[in-house]
Parts: sequence; C-alpha cells; structure tokens
Amino acid sequence: MKLKAKLLDIQAGGRRIAILDDESASLLGVHSSDRVRISYKNKQLIALVNIATDFPRSHIGLYQEISKMLRIKTGENVEVQHALIPESLSYVQEKINGGRLREDKINAIVRDVMEHHLSDTEIAAFLTTLHIRGLSITEIEALSRAMVETGSTLRLGKEPIVDKHSIGGIPGDKATILIVPIIAAAGFVIPKTSSRAVTSPAGTADRVENLCPVNLSMEEIMEVVNKTNGCMVWGGALDLAPADDLFIQVEYSLGIDPLLLPSIMSKKKAIGATHVVIDIPTGRGAKVKTIGEAHTLAYDFIELGKRLEMNVQCAITFGEQPLGYAIGPALEAKEAFETVMGDGPADLREKAIHLAGMLLEMVGGENGKQKAEEILRLGRAEVKLREIIAAQGGNPKIKPDDIKIGDKKAEITADKDGRILWISNQKISQIAREAGAPKEKGAGIKLEKKLGEEVKKGEVLLEIYAERNMKLETAVKLTKELQPMGISQKLEEQMLIDRIPTRTIHKKAFTIER
Amino acid sequence: MKLKAKLLDIQAGGRRIAILDDESASLLGVHSSDRVRISYKNKQLIALVNIATDFPRSHIGLYQEISKMLRIKTGENVEVQHALIPESLSYVQEKINGGRLREDKINAIVRDVMEHHLSDTEIAAFLTTLHIRGLSITEIEALSRAMVETGSTLRLGKEPIVDKHSIGGIPGDKATILIVPIIAAAGFVIPKTSSRAVTSPAGTADRVENLCPVNLSMEEIMEVVNKTNGCMVWGGALDLAPADDLFIQVEYSLGIDPLLLPSIMSKKKAIGATHVVIDIPTGRGAKVKTIGEAHTLAYDFIELGKRLEMNVQCAITFGEQPLGYAIGPALEAKEAFETVMGDGPADLREKAIHLAGMLLEMVGGENGKQKAEEILRLGRAEVKLREIIAAQGGNPKIKPDDIKIGDKKAEITADKDGRILWISNQKISQIAREAGAPKEKGAGIKLEKKLGEEVKKGEVLLEIYAERNMKLETAVKLTKELQPMGISQKLEEQMLIDRIPTRTIHKKAFTIER
Repeated sequence: MKLKAKLLDIQAGGRRIAILDDESASLLGVHSSDRVRISYKNKQLIALVNIATDFPRSHIGLYQEISKMLRIKTGENVEVQHALIPESLSYVQEKINGGRLREDKINAIVRDVMEHHLSDTEIAAFLTTLHIRGLSITEIEALSRAMVETGSTLRLGKEPIVDKHSIGGIPGDKATILIVPIIAAAGFVIPKTSSRAVTSPAGTADRVENLCPVNLSMEEIMEVVNKTNGCMVWGGALDLAPADDLFIQVEYSLGIDPLLLPSIMSKKKAIGATHVVIDIPTGRGAKVKTIGEAHTLAYDFIELGKRLEMNVQCAITFGEQPLGYAIGPALEAKEAFETVMGDGPADLREKAIHLAGMLLEMVGGENGKQKAEEILRLGRAEVKLREIIAAQGGNPKIKPDDIKIGDKKAEITADKDGRILWISNQKISQIAREAGAPKEKGAGIKLEKKLGEEVKKGEVLLEIYAERNMKLETAVKLTKELQPMGISQKLEEQMLIDRIPTRTIHKKAFTIER
Repeated sequence: MKLKAKLLDIQAGGRRIAILDDESASLLGVHSSDRVRISYKNKQLIALVNIATDFPRSHIGLYQEISKMLRIKTGENVEVQHALIPESLSYVQEKINGGRLREDKINAIVRDVMEHHLSDTEIAAFLTTLHIRGLSITEIEALSRAMVETGSTLRLGKEPIVDKHSIGGIPGDKATILIVPIIAAAGFVIPKTSSRAVTSPAGTADRVENLCPVNLSMEEIMEVVNKTNGCMVWGGALDLAPADDLFIQVEYSLGIDPLLLPSIMSKKKAIGATHVVIDIPTGRGAKVKTIGEAHTLAYDFIELGKRLEMNVQCAITFGEQPLGYAIGPALEAKEAFETVMGDGPADLREKAIHLAGMLLEMVGGENGKQKAEEILRLGRAEVKLREIIAAQGGNPKIKPDDIKIGDKKAEITADKDGRILWISNQKISQIAREAGAPKEKGAGIKLEKKLGEEVKKGEVLLEIYAERNMKLETAVKLTKELQPMGISQKLEEQMLIDRIPTRTIHKKAFTIER
C-alpha cells in the first residue's frame, strides 16, 4: 500500500515507530504493535505500528529514527506492507513457555534487540521470563558472546590483560582508584572501563572525573594504556556490549537483573581481558545477602569465564556498610586519592590490596597481597596514578585539597549513647542522592562513625555535603525520616526487626549499578 | 521544576507520555521510563518520561492525551516533579518474585493499568509472570471483579439473565446466531454481546452485521432486550471490563493469554448474567487440545462463576474442524440464517440445540435439548430472530440470498482419491483472512468436504470467495502452500506427523478471540 510520509519532529528513544490512521491500518491488516515493512527508493526497514484515530488518512507518520534512516521528506510516497513477526519473537515465546534457547536463537534475539525489531514489551516479557525461569550456563554464555559480537572491542595486542569488577551495591566503593595504579605499577596492563551512576550516588567514572577527564575514545585509551599500562575511563560511549544498555533500559523499572553475569562478562571480554577478579560484596544491605548465594554466583562467574576463555577469580567481601567514610563523587575521589598517597581508611586500603594481590597472583606472582601493599606503601601506586591522570589529560600535580567538595554542610548527631549496630547502604545512597550526588559532584556524605563504633549522645554520626542549600535541607529532612544508622547499647535491646503492615515513606530504590 | 509546554500534534495510543531533553531529565533525576508529576493550574497528572537528546531545553513535550486532559497551550508553564513509582508496580514485582496478590493489590494494579500509570513494559512483565507462574482462583476472582468495577455494567432489573460464550479458536462457529433466538423464543432474557475478529476470519459481531446493525448503545440494547428478550450486539464500544482491552493490546504480540478466565467472566458479570454456558471446543487445532485440559478449565469456570455469583456450566465440544461449512462474515451469516430457517449443516444445528438445551435446563426446565430442537423446528426461532433483527434496525423480511457473498470465486480440488483425515483450523483461518475476511465481509471459504468424507481426485474440497481478484489469487496460492486438509486412503499411510527441522513458510497465527 502506498502512503504519504509525514515526518514527526521527534524521536522515539531509538525505537522505530510508524503511525498509521485506523483506516489504513485496517486495510493493511495490522494492529497496534504489529510490524510493517517500509520501502523507499532502495531502502527498507521494519517499523512497529502505533495506530492513531485522528491521523490524516493515507499518511504514515515517521519518527526521526526512521526518517533519518530512509532520508525521506514529508509528502514523499513510501510502500508499506504488513511484515511477518521476526523469527526471534518465536524464540522469546519458546523461552516463555519453558524451552531452552540454543546459541543461534539467542543470537537472533540479541540482534533483533539491537535492530529495534523487538518492541519494549517483547523485551520486557523476555527479561521477566529469564528472571523467573533462570538461564542455563550455556544460555548465559551465548548471551555474553552475542553481546560482545554486536558491539565494539578493544584490541591491545598484548597479554595478559587484567581487569576487576564489583557487582556493586555498596556506596563508597572506590577501590578501583587504588587497584588500577597498583596493577599498572607492577607492570601489568589494566584498561579499566567504568560506568556512571544510574541509581547510586557515584559510579567509578563519576569519581575519577574529579581527577582527570574520563570520556576518552578507543584510540585515546590505546594511547594511554600503551604509555602507562592502565586507564580509568567511562565505558558508556565505547559501544562495548551495547545490547546491555537496551536491556537495562527495559528492566530498570521492573527491578529485575537477570543479565548480571552476561552484562559484566561481555564487557570484560570486549576489552580483551584474560584475567579478571570479580568482587561480590555480601551481607544484609548488599545485592548478595548470604555467603551461600555468593558462592553460587562466584562459581557461575568462574565457569562463564572458562567458557569465554578468561581466567576468573571471585572475592567475597564484607558488604554490610559503605566502604571507607566518603560517599559522593568528589568526596570519594578525595578519599581514594588520600589513600593512594598513604593515608585513608583501613577497610578501603585492605580491600584494594587484597583484590590487587589476587590479580597479581593470577598472572603468576606469589605473595600478591604483600606486593600490592608494598607498591602502595612505597608510593609507586601514587606515581603511577599521577602518570595515568596526566595521560588522560588531567593535572598530574593535583593535591587532595584541589578536589572541590560542596560548601554547604550539615551534621547529623546521635540522639542517644550506644554503639553503631547497623548502617543501611540503601538509605545512605538515597540521602547522598537527595543531597545532589552524582549530578552535583561535590554533594555526598562523610560518615563519622562506622559499624561497631561507640557513640555518645550529641556526637556527630555523619556529615552531609551539598552544593545548594535547598538540596542540603531536603537531605537532612530525609535523614531524619530514614534513620540510616541503628544505635543501641546492646543487641538485646533491638529485638524488633520490622513491623507488618509497615508504613513505607520512601520506596526502596532498585540498584542497577554493576 | 518549571518547564514550558510544547504540544505534540500526535497521540500515544492512550498512553500519557511526556518528552524531556536530557539536561532537564538529569536535573530532575529522572531516567527514561521514570514518571513525572505534571501540574498545571489546578490539574495534575502522572506521565511516563521519554528522553530525547535534541529536544529544546527547558521544554516538556506533551502528547495529545496529556494536553487534552490539562487543557493547556504551547508555551504555557507547567510544574514538573519526579514522581514516586506507583504502589502497584511493587505489587507487580511481588508477583514476579513469586508472591500471591491479595484483592487490594490486584485492584491497585487494574486501576493503574486503566489510568495508564503502569507502562506497557510493566504490563508485559505482569502478564508474562501470570502466564508462567499461573494465578490462584482467588487472584482470578479479584482480577475479574476489578475488571468489572472499572467498567460499565448493564442493569436490566430482571432475573434470570442467561448468556453463552465460546472460548473460541474454531473457525465458522456461528452457533450464537441460533442460540440467542431459541432462548429468547423460550421466554428467557439473553442480552448477548460479542466481539469482532482480531486474528480470526470472523467474530460474532462481524457475522450478525450482515443481518442488522450491531453497534448499539447501552440504552438501545435495553430497549431491544425489553422488546424481544434478546439481542446480538458488538460489545467493543460498551466499556464492559475495558481493562481487558489494555491487557490484550500488550499480550497480543507475546502469544500468551493468561487472563482468559477473568476476561470472559468479567464481561458476563458486567451484563448481569446469572446463568452461563461456556463452550470449550477441544481437540487438535483447538485452543484446548485434550479432554483433561478441558476438564480443568471447565472446573475453573464453574468455581469462578460461584465466586462471582453466576451459575456456570461448561460444554466440551468437538473442535477438530470448522463448525458447519462456511467461514467468513457473510458466508457464515447466510449459513446460520439458513439453519435457523430449517436447513443447514447437522453439526451446527446439533451444537446449537445442545448448548441452548443446557441453558434451558439451567433456568429450570427439563428436556432442554428437545425443547430447543422444537423451537427451532417449529420456526419459532426464525420468528424471534426476525424480531431481533427488526428491533436492532435491520430488515425483518431479509432472505438468505440478500446476504452478499464475494463474487470472485475459486475452487480447490483434491489431487488424489481418499478420505479427509484432518482439517487445520489455523490454516483455514489464515486462508480466509488472506481472501479478505473479516474486513471484506463477502470473503471467506466454503468447505465442500469435512472430516471422514470420501473424496475423488479432481473433486472440489473447498471454494474460496473474495471481493477482489488480487486477494483471491493470493488466497489460492496460500492454500496450495499450506495444504489445509489431509487426504489419504488409510490412516496407516500417514505415519509421519512432522519433520524437525521444519521449514516454516508462514508463522502460525496466535488466536486471541475469546
């Protein structure tokens, strides 16, 4: 059927959507969410149909995604046909109905997600099914490979290439800023790509950005790594396993994360990693609640690594409170930098040299932890960090005090004597975000007390930093509502864990940081 | 945050969608698929956010659904805030994670579906979960009630009110056109609402439309039923259980139908039915494949009926081939009308008097089938049908030959001697649709042979009718590809059922007719 193109001055978030009036739709035999094949000159594409009751007859409305691809103008004629459903949709249905998917079927699904041939509702059904039915390790492997193959890869032409990754969920986890220079100083290549925060107060890219630019191209990364052995860059624009971004966009509001393994491991494979340590923070308030769960996940990472030809080890780490004392991009960068310079909190230092030590042992050394500790203690990590900062275009002479912290500040004090019995990772994250993190880099939280510490009534528990007074106020208000720390003299005084029905003031946020 | 409204000249299919530029979205802390609360004067609503990279700064794009509700003009200021996720989304997540939903939670979900507070991806996740995890009878009851309560209801102020429904899937099932006049002639009230075809060649509303108008308002229905005891109208615009339409829109492309029971029964409840017969066609090629499955479904219908205060009985009927010989709106209307007038195929007649007989017995009579047969045989059903036709605005003197059949015709002949071993319901439906049904009312199929009949090489198996030559040609071509009937001398000659891998030419269509 011939229809006149009517260009819509708007995007559909990457989706390929065409609008038809109900009369034309009926003649074509298509319903809302059916697909049409649009042909114009020698170009063709598949679009999803939205049906509008008051759209001009014999016209087809094209979002910018489509009109750009076809290079078409309003008023020109296109040929429109009812398209068959994509083969991959029947594979999605197969999985919904309890089947297992072979590699070729998973490839077809990932390809059609990338091509926007599958709609968001179909992707949502797929992800919900994966969450409920689970994935076999063979399916996980195929998904990981398909996600690598539909994206860009980094080819350094060297071996070994080491990498580390935390599955996330712990605010203040800035260990990467220590581990990368330690490994690079030891002479090993570690091209670290990181994400920005989506639902957390800071991602590693947000932290590092306080020291130097992180938005590098593939070519610039190669140059930095060839010069210094390491880098700490934002991975978001590098097109590594881009299908993952499309999946995340859909699963985000559903609060499910069935692709944790392929998402992480496809990105490691894409940068060519040969040796990887995965950090699995574990405990109440972490993504993984029990040691048992952590073990299962760890063995899945290791097995998947084998299948993707990567040597993987996992570190199960204590995840019941934030790492270090600082939460928020600038505060964390400062704390990490101070720790590299020899000062800084024991837990951050300990975790960093442990993970770095594991990596050093994996690539053939002995006494990895001692070596890592030595590199840090002798200042070699600091020298290396400054080299990397310079290579990425930052100031190598930077001092901790050069990092700008929000100048609005409020103190939250204890309302009784006691001991810190728990600190809620989620509540701390929420408060830091309310103060302005990650968008306002200087915003965040500085803890003054951590688990097990004694506190007197009136003593400061934490400080909130913000760049704007209004944000500071709402963050203080939220802190009083949420009560992110539990104080008591003795455990025996805190027998009540929860009340049902409970009055939820703020919904728990779902963390998709990986 | 204050933003300037920019009205978009387009609908979003009922959805409430607002476009933000990435800068404003970031300042508000919202991501794609998050929600915002838009306030304008004394009006407020929740919209789903789409983020566009090249949208003008400090503007908010509003689809017509929103601008109409707010009665706003381009350039006016609105207040926009990040809205919390709706409570109901956490109930969806609860079900995803294996919980059971209580009535209040199901009410909240259905309400938020109706208000478009839940996005299509969230509804897709919900429906996929229901399909995989199943629903308890308590959940089914709550969903049915919620779907009734969010729609209109018909209040005739009489009792009993009888109704029948087929779960569908069998082409050519025109029994309703016989059952309604039989029941009405027997003195019982049967206000029958039906659907139009979505993926099948004809719905009951499409069939009846060849006899009289079917697009009646609630008031007109009351008038027709008060005058004649019965009606046969299109239910689509009556707003009966409208949430169902929103669910169908999402599940359609996924090929799942977890809401079969609440969807059917909510509509029965909404018209005030007290006695209902549910027809469950069973067999290869039907929705329900085995007698065992049919029994399970039947007891669910009966139990749900009890909970909704309706007396329900189920008929498990033979569903391995089309009912009667005619498929397509006009062809079926003609065949049904001829059967009411005393002529017509035995299977159609037998099924109709069986189901009508069950209904007559349910409202207190004895020998229901004999009574139904008598009403049909003595012409009382025909008189009643003509009354109903007149009351709905049709010509009561209509003759079968007045019904216009497509004037393009092709015959498909047998390529060997033998017996009809199977007829594929799905292939017959696909061919009838290819010929133009249901849009072109005169298009369809007339079977010349049915299961078990002898056929000689060269004898006619079926006739294809169309209104346009091109449609006729493609339907003939499809018939040759699909081979909708299996012919063989003996069963022993047909041992091969299928080959794997198979070469699928046309995808099997998913039937959502209920």
